Amino acid sequence: MAAPAVLPSFSSADRRELTAEAGDLIDRLRRHGGGADGSVTRLVYTPAWQAAMADIEDWLTSGGLEVRADAVGSRFGRLAGESREVVLSGSHTDSVRAGGAYDGVLGVVMAGCAVRWLVASLGRPKRTIEVFANCEEESSRFASNFWGSRAIAGQIAPDEAERLTDADGNTIGAAMRSCGLDPTRIHEATRRDLVAFVEPHIEQGPELAEAGDVVGVVDQVVGVRGLRVSFQGVAGHAGTIPMARRRDALAGAAEVVLAAERIANEQGAPAVATVGHLDVQPGGFNQVPGSAHFTIDFRHPTETVLDDMEERLLRLLDTVAAERALEVRVKPLIGQPGIRFDDRVCGILETACRESGVPWRRMPSHAGHDAQLIGTLCPAAMLFLPSQGGHSHRPDEHTDIVHVGCGIEVLVRTLFRLGWGG
Amino acid sequence: MAAPAVLPSFSSADRRELTAEAGDLIDRLRRHGGGADGSVTRLVYTPAWQAAMADIEDWLTSGGLEVRADAVGSRFGRLAGESREVVLSGSHTDSVRAGGAYDGVLGVVMAGCAVRWLVASLGRPKRTIEVFANCEEESSRFASNFWGSRAIAGQIAPDEAERLTDADGNTIGAAMRSCGLDPTRIHEATRRDLVAFVEPHIEQGPELAEAGDVVGVVDQVVGVRGLRVSFQGVAGHAGTIPMARRRDALAGAAEVVLAAERIANEQGAPAVATVGHLDVQPGGFNQVPGSAHFTIDFRHPTETVLDDMEERLLRLLDTVAAERALEVRVKPLIGQPGIRFDDRVCGILETACRESGVPWRRMPSHAGHDAQLIGTLCPAAMLFLPSQGGHSHRPDEHTDIVHVGCGIEVLVRTLFRLGWGG
Repeated sequence: MAAPAVLPSFSSADRRELTAEAGDLIDRLRRHGGGADGSVTRLVYTPAWQAAMADIEDWLTSGGLEVRADAVGSRFGRLAGESREVVLSGSHTDSVRAGGAYDGVLGVVMAGCAVRWLVASLGRPKRTIEVFANCEEESSRFASNFWGSRAIAGQIAPDEAERLTDADGNTIGAAMRSCGLDPTRIHEATRRDLVAFVEPHIEQGPELAEAGDVVGVVDQVVGVRGLRVSFQGVAGHAGTIPMARRRDALAGAAEVVLAAERIANEQGAPAVATVGHLDVQPGGFNQVPGSAHFTIDFRHPTETVLDDMEERLLRLLDTVAAERALEVRVKPLIGQPGIRFDDRVCGILETACRESGVPWRRMPSHAGHDAQLIGTLCPAAMLFLPSQGGHSHRPDEHTDIVHVGCGIEVLVRTLFRLGWGG
Repeated sequence: MAAPAVLPSFSSADRRELTAEAGDLIDRLRRHGGGADGSVTRLVYTPAWQAAMADIEDWLTSGGLEVRADAVGSRFGRLAGESREVVLSGSHTDSVRAGGAYDGVLGVVMAGCAVRWLVASLGRPKRTIEVFANCEEESSRFASNFWGSRAIAGQIAPDEAERLTDADGNTIGAAMRSCGLDPTRIHEATRRDLVAFVEPHIEQGPELAEAGDVVGVVDQVVGVRGLRVSFQGVAGHAGTIPMARRRDALAGAAEVVLAAERIANEQGAPAVATVGHLDVQPGGFNQVPGSAHFTIDFRHPTETVLDDMEERLLRLLDTVAAERALEVRVKPLIGQPGIRFDDRVCGILETACRESGVPWRRMPSHAGHDAQLIGTLCPAAMLFLPSQGGHSHRPDEHTDIVHVGCGIEVLVRTLFRLGWGG
């Protein structure tokens, strides 16, 4: 049973139908963890997450796919092919706190729509195709750092299940057990059968929308580093401590906020640097801040540039601490190397864009994604859709449903080539 | 029954005895609201506060004073004189959160010790003398802004009792009722019979300790102004929002933190400016801050200098907001004019220091105190004792017990002149 070399007609009616299905599903899934303000908070292993996963499982099953959960609870909707080599497509199901209805789960919906169409239109592929509903990517409940894709890549350390805790002190292992998952079996999630991965995702930035392009063919993810910094000075009364005697931890942190911005600006785009978290103690309006705890996140595609930015930041922290008589402590927060995606998969995505008549551009991702991890196992690339206003991780996060339909057609053509092609 | 013109012998044994009594009482009172780390959290109208007030009442009564509570729960231990004109001395009984055992209540202890000695040694004075245990000064539970002394000065607005709420949403009126006080009677606390007020208090700064002086004769309180500022920018993903497109509220706030410091330094001592509170939202390490809420506290003895500092700060806020495309909102947080205390009362304090052989200096207070309010009703001044390390509002706040004894002797001699003098 040889596979057809060319995709049979994908009509505008097909696109409309899949667009409508995707729209229905986005609306359905946003209810799991949905708030009155339109926000979505779907943290891994919570009841809202379990309900979303069950819903996705039902939908994929009804589309003719065989669904299984792996050891960490990610779902895989399988269309068995002649070969056991697997072409994987999808994204994550969890969300940030008070996020939107698109980040992550849109990729699951798009992959599901595309594969359901392929099942119905073409039947059995040469290679096995799986829709991937990853359990966790956002680190929004635990500092879990790509939990689902790290499980697949065999990169979860044996002690993590009992070490990582949420704000209430629950371990991620206990949270797994509450969902009927056994943390001692995490290593069983490791995959060795993947031959390609395509992750559809919203851009989360303004580039596509501003350029008027509908699809981004993502050929790299920039590296991310993060530092967790504490400045310890001396708290005191805002009236009685003369300026000259102060050891004001917030004033030191303020210098760092501005210097991080300056370092990124001097490096130039695409370098970015952000102090996103800052906690000041004791915090009274009439108290000189005694301590400031903050983070610095900085990103660039090139490791040597990241090295240079990190060196400048560390030197700066020492200088500010010395000048203000503060104690400084620095810990690594995150260190995710960048990745260059596979040229052939990017090329297939570009061909699919041309065939679909969709305006597209190659671009890097400035945010971390599951494809960084899974791309270490097999050829991978990503497909971005525009984020309205460049916004994400917000209740008003939105992607035009017409763009979703375009993206699904591109994905259908891409998965066809990967699953049925030579 | 004429009063003696000269204080009878105040012996070193008297000083030792009063020092011991003060030490015992400090230890006893720190248990009301005391934490395991030595901290004291005694917020107005809480059970810890009620217990402290009951303890003070018992102690003053046992010393031969007639104790009454006013309409807001402040206690007055009265030694009736020939005249109904009242010489008042004392300070506040409440504390900040996680503060120490000295700020406020030491003034009550010192006044109590001094007046108990005067009662025992001299009997009835010419003028009535009262020990003042003020219910509230710290604004640590409600934004109550000198509640006890404002009640005495008739400066509490009729709606405040039902408008001011604590962190749990309880009104200060409800908290009063829980202590058997009737908020509709607050106006009855107003006093018109005061002829002098002396407030003993810890310095809360390093000046006395560094100069090697034991008593500060405080002849003015600097003015305090405060602004509550919100910067609203646009939150976003720390990777996907290019530097050039950011509207980072924290970066704006950081400029203000450093500029406030610069404005105070340029003005020169005794000007101070402090950003003590800063809250950043959404606060994730990988999120560009969309909003920053912070306070600016600035102080100087001269109103025109405060006007100038405020003008510079407001101009700065507008400039930063315009340059960073942030929305800015500014609300007044506090505006407490400075006060010059009474020359005669300061002179009596200085004479008492000389008679006691205590090294002293004139100085301003850089912190706000009840004497600012009560000083609008009658001649007033303050007596400062050194704060070890210049620290206050901390569990390790400490004043040498030998200095407490010196201060009590100075207060005995001062109240003698005010109560028995011409």
